[in-house]
Amino acid sequence: MQRVPFDQLRDTLERALAASGLPLGRAALAARLIAESSLDGVPSHGLNLVPRLITMIRSGVVDTSARAEAVASHGALERWDGHRGVGVLNAYEAMQSAIALSRAHGIGCVALGNTNHWFRGGTYGWQAADAGVIGICWTNTLPNLPPWGADEPRIGNNPLVIAVPRDDGHVVLDMAMSQFSYGALRSYRTRGELLPVDGGFDREGHLTRDPAEILASMRPLPIGYWKGSGLSMLLDMVAAALSGGSATHQIPREPEREIGLSQVFIAIAPTTVGARDEAMRIVDAIVASTGVRYPGQRAAEARRLNLVEGVPVDPDAWRFVLRLVHPESVEE
Amino acid sequence: MQRVPFDQLRDTLERALAASGLPLGRAALAARLIAESSLDGVPSHGLNLVPRLITMIRSGVVDTSARAEAVASHGALERWDGHRGVGVLNAYEAMQSAIALSRAHGIGCVALGNTNHWFRGGTYGWQAADAGVIGICWTNTLPNLPPWGADEPRIGNNPLVIAVPRDDGHVVLDMAMSQFSYGALRSYRTRGELLPVDGGFDREGHLTRDPAEILASMRPLPIGYWKGSGLSMLLDMVAAALSGGSATHQIPREPEREIGLSQVFIAIAPTTVGARDEAMRIVDAIVASTGVRYPGQRAAEARRLNLVEGVPVDPDAWRFVLRLVHPESVEE
Repeated sequence: MQRVPFDQLRDTLERALAASGLPLGRAALAARLIAESSLDGVPSHGLNLVPRLITMIRSGVVDTSARAEAVASHGALERWDGHRGVGVLNAYEAMQSAIALSRAHGIGCVALGNTNHWFRGGTYGWQAADAGVIGICWTNTLPNLPPWGADEPRIGNNPLVIAVPRDDGHVVLDMAMSQFSYGALRSYRTRGELLPVDGGFDREGHLTRDPAEILASMRPLPIGYWKGSGLSMLLDMVAAALSGGSATHQIPREPEREIGLSQVFIAIAPTTVGARDEAMRIVDAIVASTGVRYPGQRAAEARRLNLVEGVPVDPDAWRFVLRLVHPESVEE
Repeated sequence: MQRVPFDQLRDTLERALAASGLPLGRAALAARLIAESSLDGVPSHGLNLVPRLITMIRSGVVDTSARAEAVASHGALERWDGHRGVGVLNAYEAMQSAIALSRAHGIGCVALGNTNHWFRGGTYGWQAADAGVIGICWTNTLPNLPPWGADEPRIGNNPLVIAVPRDDGHVVLDMAMSQFSYGALRSYRTRGELLPVDGGFDREGHLTRDPAEILASMRPLPIGYWKGSGLSMLLDMVAAALSGGSATHQIPREPEREIGLSQVFIAIAPTTVGARDEAMRIVDAIVASTGVRYPGQRAAEARRLNLVEGVPVDPDAWRFVLRLVHPESVEE
């Protein structure tokens, strides 16, 4: 496995994004956020998504010069237009504003429409928790999941993130509404393994653990069957209705044309209504009481390890990025 | 099946609650909310929970004279103490305040601690949607679900409610974090049926559809396995940390001593940042696009039917309530 020091990964990404048209300071921020996703052990939503972003920039789907802006606001609630700008930057700035609103009003909410893929949802949970506030955010996606009771993909896997700050490691949940992502299904298939639990339907409509069958039927399962299907629908409704942006069924099904996403960013500042230490004790006690790993623990462990050992990189994605920086220096 | 006209159910409940110590106006409100849950086809969280509430009033666990009050506030965020008052009333008043906050600030949040069972979570979703705002609320519960990776019940099934107003029938999701409730498991067992999907572990630790095995092992499944387990944990953390109330692991495991719950009520007013009609069109289009039943549709259908035909009542629960109103008139 190839590993690259974090600083080198981040700086190379910065130059690659700047070479692709992002203004300098914004290239640096986007590069850091993307590199941190790989650092935290989620390369599928870090470095590995960069080639797709570059393709979308080149085809004009993503506008590197656009900046998200508030188009309506009322107290602690703002509606933003992302103007098809770079998704990670739009999302980061929306959460920054939600955090600022929560400091002023106790709770704040930014609904962002007309944006695109935010890479790793957890990024914005960690961002809120690092600022000492509770973060809740979600995005809709292209249609990639059949609702319960149907066999065509008409809902999105709409990742939901909830983050709680904690001195001894934030608790950050980052979960899509599908039981397994298409990426995970492909990994299991490549390794020739069955899924640990049912992950979708086969072509005859029976539940199965066989990833190849699910990839063939295009019918992965929502978490909790009818429950995750309903939750996905509601997340889409709230995001699209609040932002005035597109709903899942209006978003192109081709990943490289996935534009016009709607997202919601909520921040809540517990310290504005009570003692910070009390909240910390409560969260610590809950972590201890369950006796199992808590959401976010794995990311923190990966970060510690990869800061020392280097960040594992996918050779193809890494070569793609290097080529953007040094067009002549990388052999085909 | 015994059916009772809605007005009779509500009025009888009102007298029963008043006879049990609730002040008159508050008995009327609680009776309406409880009767509406049965009306909407959810008697398990309506009439059928009344005997348990009365037991908790008689034992002093629930204080009929207590009223929830704000103990800290900052802009759009309030922390409330439920003072062990009647759960449905505490929750209703908390959501009313969140709605008022959302009208003033765009979004509002009330975190309520020291309360008890709110009966049907959907009640507060319908309440928000009827007021024309988006409602998001959840509660923690006694420990009734093993976290993924453990075999002891240490997390709660923590129902989550998301409601979106809609002219042609609100969309209201009301879902617990367990795939099947204990009540549902018992119903399947009584009917001698297997569950439609895996619902928990048997005593040997294998996933099973046999409700009797799950009732014996006390290991029902969280929705989405590790995902619902994590979501349950985060809902508990946010509710307890924001309200300063108890976390699931601090709540007594006996249902009739389930006191000190923590709940969160969030309301968001889309009309404060944009056109109401636009949001309605978006929600309508999503409902149409999925081609399946939407959350809340079944409740609306049950309501229409039961208003005409009468509300189905469990004979034992109904007799219990009648006996409170006319102690001599009901035969044992």
